[in-house]
Amino acid sequence: MLATVIHAARDIRLEDVPRPQLSTGRDAIVRVVASCVCGSDLWPYRGVTPTKAPHRIGHEFVGVVDSVGEQVSAVKPGDFVIAPFYVCDGTCVNCRNGVSTSCLNGGWWGGEVREEGFADGGQGEYVRVPLADGTLAVVPGPVADEEIPGLLTLSDVMGTGHHAAVSAGVEAGDTVAVVGDGAVGLCAIIAAKRLGAATIIAMSRHPQRQALAREFGASHVVEARGDEGVAAVQALTGGIGADRVLECVGTRESMDQALRSTRPGGMVGYVGVPNGGPELPVRPMFNRNVGVNGGVAPVRGYVEELLPDVRSGAIRPGLVFDLELPLTAVAEAYAAMDERRATKVMLRP
Amino acid sequence: MLATVIHAARDIRLEDVPRPQLSTGRDAIVRVVASCVCGSDLWPYRGVTPTKAPHRIGHEFVGVVDSVGEQVSAVKPGDFVIAPFYVCDGTCVNCRNGVSTSCLNGGWWGGEVREEGFADGGQGEYVRVPLADGTLAVVPGPVADEEIPGLLTLSDVMGTGHHAAVSAGVEAGDTVAVVGDGAVGLCAIIAAKRLGAATIIAMSRHPQRQALAREFGASHVVEARGDEGVAAVQALTGGIGADRVLECVGTRESMDQALRSTRPGGMVGYVGVPNGGPELPVRPMFNRNVGVNGGVAPVRGYVEELLPDVRSGAIRPGLVFDLELPLTAVAEAYAAMDERRATKVMLRP
Repeated sequence: MLATVIHAARDIRLEDVPRPQLSTGRDAIVRVVASCVCGSDLWPYRGVTPTKAPHRIGHEFVGVVDSVGEQVSAVKPGDFVIAPFYVCDGTCVNCRNGVSTSCLNGGWWGGEVREEGFADGGQGEYVRVPLADGTLAVVPGPVADEEIPGLLTLSDVMGTGHHAAVSAGVEAGDTVAVVGDGAVGLCAIIAAKRLGAATIIAMSRHPQRQALAREFGASHVVEARGDEGVAAVQALTGGIGADRVLECVGTRESMDQALRSTRPGGMVGYVGVPNGGPELPVRPMFNRNVGVNGGVAPVRGYVEELLPDVRSGAIRPGLVFDLELPLTAVAEAYAAMDERRATKVMLRP
Repeated sequence: MLATVIHAARDIRLEDVPRPQLSTGRDAIVRVVASCVCGSDLWPYRGVTPTKAPHRIGHEFVGVVDSVGEQVSAVKPGDFVIAPFYVCDGTCVNCRNGVSTSCLNGGWWGGEVREEGFADGGQGEYVRVPLADGTLAVVPGPVADEEIPGLLTLSDVMGTGHHAAVSAGVEAGDTVAVVGDGAVGLCAIIAAKRLGAATIIAMSRHPQRQALAREFGASHVVEARGDEGVAAVQALTGGIGADRVLECVGTRESMDQALRSTRPGGMVGYVGVPNGGPELPVRPMFNRNVGVNGGVAPVRGYVEELLPDVRSGAIRPGLVFDLELPLTAVAEAYAAMDERRATKVMLRP
């Protein structure tokens, strides 16, 4: 079968690899219906994180269950499933605490998962899913083709945007600013709107993304950054800053923008993977009672809450996909995202 | 009248100063019944923050209203009042948002308060209280002498400990660790217990403070620090860390202890004034979804909630005072706290 392998920076290849086999009794084989490229896949692509040896890549996919191990009870062959961007058992104390990304027995696609063996990358034709009962979320009933993009966002970006909003404590009536206009930032706007935010300020300089931000519920767009960006947010918030700010980038500059755009007593919800490890300046946070909460989003636990709204069309996160390519064009998918010609690329085998 | 003036590091003097006068129409003159020395007063005392010119000091006091300006309506002469460690109007947007320490018109004792003029230090015989309607909290009815210590803690340490617990999101059934065994840390134990924490781990090496911690509700005491301290907390929490950790010191080491003692998905509530500005390591916070929330505690807004429990004896924060001295011995009060001979010193004019 075909699967995507990264060999080095800017060297993405679709290769013939062995079709995966059930091996632990707790796993499932899933035929991938759609996968996509994540902003974090661009780190090894750009060489920001080194690729020491060729390895499988991709961690967002939906598909149909092909076969299951004998201990699997929550999914069965023929089920349409959403895989989150990680593997989790759903039963350990961290999973029960709602932090399945810290699952004591879980792990990451394209690597080893403790006693479960190798977890394939998601950008391929078939994937062996370890700990299938905990990892996979079943989408009941028939799934229409036009539902695929929306469902695929529940594997990462929609759940991650939601995590930013939940971590920041967004409530009905809040004023929310969103830093970052990538797929996660756009989904964070959806999430803030869905949780009842009355005013949503999108920080974006990109015309198409601004338009999508407004379609998703942004009431204002701020193009300025730095001191001017802070001033613009304050001008829209009675001079004090936003109640909640969702940081969806992960750089020092974006976190600084978020912290300074938050009102006294407000909270930053952050889901941008910290790039290079910006440290948080505690004294200004302390002086203004600005909190910071978030992290690697436990999206598996959000599927059940968000799925009905995705299926009903109440929210339309699938619109973040602005390019669809066949899996054979996976190298072009990476290039399009790297060059910002696409916000988010969907791949179909 | 007599008031405390700091001239330089370790140079605290009780001096004869002019008795304050009403001056803005919005102020009140309060006869101080009791005041105290704060851990943060030790910063200028120790020279950590320089004293450029002699100035009045002290920011925690209770007393009886002597006179009020013509626009004051919430307090009247004869009222027993609690003054928080800052001045606030109670009506600006930040005050309405529950962050009265960021009052747009407020300020700090011993300094200038915007249009309100000089705010006396609290360690004196009389204090002019700017913005009296917002700043002062009235204690209804007769006040017994034995109530004074408990009421005085509402000016700072009890409200600050409560803020740590509220900021961390302590809920019934939680496991809570408290870093710091000073007056604030001890009050944080009271607050955690009051909010329903099922397990409270006090990190303390000081025998008398350990005893008080247990009296206030700590179920476990951990003496170890650093890696050993983290391991000890994990051993008491099923290997994952505490749900909520209350950081009540403000050093890099104490914040590190707090962050690493928190379970994935947990929250650090911090109220220790950041000493030297430790920065927060965002990557390990991100990886484990550990949030940080808190800051300079808006204690004025907590008085109404906490006062009934203090008066009924349901909570006994007044026990943190382990030394009482006359105001004339204020220099000794500072020395006793500096040398850790006392946890918290109460001064009576």
